[in-house]
Amino acid sequence: MPNTTANKFDDWLDLYADRANTLSVSEVRALFAVVSRPEVVSLAGGMPYVHALPKDTIEKSFKKLMHDRGDLAIQYSGGQGDLTLRDQVRELMALEGIKSSVEDIVMTTGSQHGLDLISGLFLERGDVVLAEGPSYVGAIGIFRHYEAHVEHVETDNDGLQPEALEEAIKRLKAEGRKIKFLYLVPNFANPSGVTLAAKRRARIIELCRKNHILVLEDNPYGLLYFDKKVPNALRSMDDNVIYLGSFSKILAPGFRVGYVLCPPAIREKLVLAQESAILCPSAFSQMLISEYLAESDWQGQIETFRGVYRERRDAALDAMKEYLPKLSTTRPEGGFYLWITLPEGLDSKAMLPLAVKELVAYTPGTAFYGDGTGQNKLRICYSFPTPDNIKVGIKRLSNVINLQTELRDTFAKKGTKK
Amino acid sequence: MPNTTANKFDDWLDLYADRANTLSVSEVRALFAVVSRPEVVSLAGGMPYVHALPKDTIEKSFKKLMHDRGDLAIQYSGGQGDLTLRDQVRELMALEGIKSSVEDIVMTTGSQHGLDLISGLFLERGDVVLAEGPSYVGAIGIFRHYEAHVEHVETDNDGLQPEALEEAIKRLKAEGRKIKFLYLVPNFANPSGVTLAAKRRARIIELCRKNHILVLEDNPYGLLYFDKKVPNALRSMDDNVIYLGSFSKILAPGFRVGYVLCPPAIREKLVLAQESAILCPSAFSQMLISEYLAESDWQGQIETFRGVYRERRDAALDAMKEYLPKLSTTRPEGGFYLWITLPEGLDSKAMLPLAVKELVAYTPGTAFYGDGTGQNKLRICYSFPTPDNIKVGIKRLSNVINLQTELRDTFAKKGTKK
Repeated sequence: MPNTTANKFDDWLDLYADRANTLSVSEVRALFAVVSRPEVVSLAGGMPYVHALPKDTIEKSFKKLMHDRGDLAIQYSGGQGDLTLRDQVRELMALEGIKSSVEDIVMTTGSQHGLDLISGLFLERGDVVLAEGPSYVGAIGIFRHYEAHVEHVETDNDGLQPEALEEAIKRLKAEGRKIKFLYLVPNFANPSGVTLAAKRRARIIELCRKNHILVLEDNPYGLLYFDKKVPNALRSMDDNVIYLGSFSKILAPGFRVGYVLCPPAIREKLVLAQESAILCPSAFSQMLISEYLAESDWQGQIETFRGVYRERRDAALDAMKEYLPKLSTTRPEGGFYLWITLPEGLDSKAMLPLAVKELVAYTPGTAFYGDGTGQNKLRICYSFPTPDNIKVGIKRLSNVINLQTELRDTFAKKGTKK
Repeated sequence: MPNTTANKFDDWLDLYADRANTLSVSEVRALFAVVSRPEVVSLAGGMPYVHALPKDTIEKSFKKLMHDRGDLAIQYSGGQGDLTLRDQVRELMALEGIKSSVEDIVMTTGSQHGLDLISGLFLERGDVVLAEGPSYVGAIGIFRHYEAHVEHVETDNDGLQPEALEEAIKRLKAEGRKIKFLYLVPNFANPSGVTLAAKRRARIIELCRKNHILVLEDNPYGLLYFDKKVPNALRSMDDNVIYLGSFSKILAPGFRVGYVLCPPAIREKLVLAQESAILCPSAFSQMLISEYLAESDWQGQIETFRGVYRERRDAALDAMKEYLPKLSTTRPEGGFYLWITLPEGLDSKAMLPLAVKELVAYTPGTAFYGDGTGQNKLRICYSFPTPDNIKVGIKRLSNVINLQTELRDTFAKKGTKK
């Protein structure tokens, strides 16, 4: 009688909508309390290293904003977002080959809310969303909240496999399922760290076009490449792609400013959905970022971030080589993440409490699948801890993994004896 | 064939969820372009007079924040919101008799998003939401977006009528409808300006409790009383009331910071829904407001706002007396709005383009009903224009109304002749 207890504490249990039951504490969120303990090296998180952003740059932008347009910045504003900032976003996207009009850009409360609002416009209970396997935990959460089914498509070191995509579409269509989106993070993906190869992009676009599937291109990390620029955005090849961008990683997440570029008819509905949900995004945050882009060397700042994350990626890969040389890991050329495959038989979720006891945290692989798989995978985020701490963390992780591997072998031998 | 044209411009028409079709350009939003023309006196809007807030106060709070906690302010933060600010919100709500725990407060992107998230937790297609007649246009929009039916309950100068509420509940229950919420703005309501009498509050709480209906108390204006404090909040009488508050009117809306106080089990789901939708509310906006509350004379600032709005309310009522003495209007004792009844046979929506031609704007009454009624009502918002402009605006409005009344009489006479 699982409901009896719940009823005792929740008088309104009979009133919830079905979608309320899709919500559960994510494995990433549950780690927040752990992460904040100073003695734990957290390789979980996903936080940008905002310490590398000089606060006086923000202060300069703020002062100018308050002086020039203070009353506008603290007032209600338009539901589509600040026009000047949208024009600057247009230039930002042009760096990835995207041609766009300010008319088709909508500013949002982080790109997360852009994805939430777009999902609300399209997803009905039982619809299918195709996504990389593994995929961004926050996106899976949104799709589930709209009662959609997330179907993962196999991914390798060149990103999503077009053949696997084609097979999945064929199979799902044969089953009579309604596929609404292909959601993907093509550059330095969260959690895999891999980048979708240029030659695969056109093929994927073509497959989705042919099958009337909307492509959602989520690209928070694209500008954080270490050596080589990423291939042009999928959106640069097809105006029907819905493109999601964010200032959280190239500036700072605390402002909660992201953006969506989408076809005009969808954009019109998106603005209405946004007005319904929040009236308007924060004028203050948007205009502050707009001043920052206009007045400061934001490209130099991104270069600084690249240097910080490159050094940390190197520290992480070096430590992997030193302490866990037998494990396979992705080798990201930008972004925040390593994706690690554990020795067979190890379960990253079951192992997490042991790791925390060893004072290191990571995110278990199951967080990045909607279907319970990913047990022997884990994600390491190297963006926030110092290079030295990354090494300490991976050393600690190696202790846990090695012990678990020994235990597995011991039990396996015992098993053999029987 | 209305869909043929649409199809030409929207390749994805067959993919939308049903809820996408609940969205339409609201009568208030459509006025935005008009409002921005300087020669038009806008009595539409709903904007607080943020010019009365000294920008150097904000600047002082910002500087301190950046200096003391800059890296935290621009980082990701918790999904429930800043703990210090939640504690300050607790004190704010205590001014209205509310006893609460910081544990049960959730910070949101304006109270609008609080209402949106709560609605998402409970509303299924076809559910009923009871609301004042008239009710806040943004709330009606949210309820419709979740495909709920809004049933208006008659309201007079003492607010929602308990007898009408009882009758509506009985009738809807007899029809087998599922009533989830009673939504109300008990103080200086938008758009009516009226306040729910103290003696009615307990009766309404009792009726909802008896019928297992959640009460949503939306109170953005309560602290903006002109002379007399408002009665204690409904939430002070029943811990099951979901209370929505906002900094948009007592500080500024550009930060997009509001809050929800709700029962623990609902709060838990609300935090998860918020994390799904936006990961976390803006740390930057929240911490800036927290500094402002800690360091500045915020109660003195609210007193300043009261003075500004009192003077404007007086200007509006004086002008009504001078130019439109025969029309009935509510006499708000706080907040932003007058609710005006037009002479019989006049239609405020049809009249709006004529008013704009006369360089005055207002919001037609139909915006505040989900059922198409309210044609001979209109809302005047006196919060933003200067007292002189309010008088000019109402004078212009009287020209339009008087001309329309004459025309009506002329046609009526002609009609009689026939």
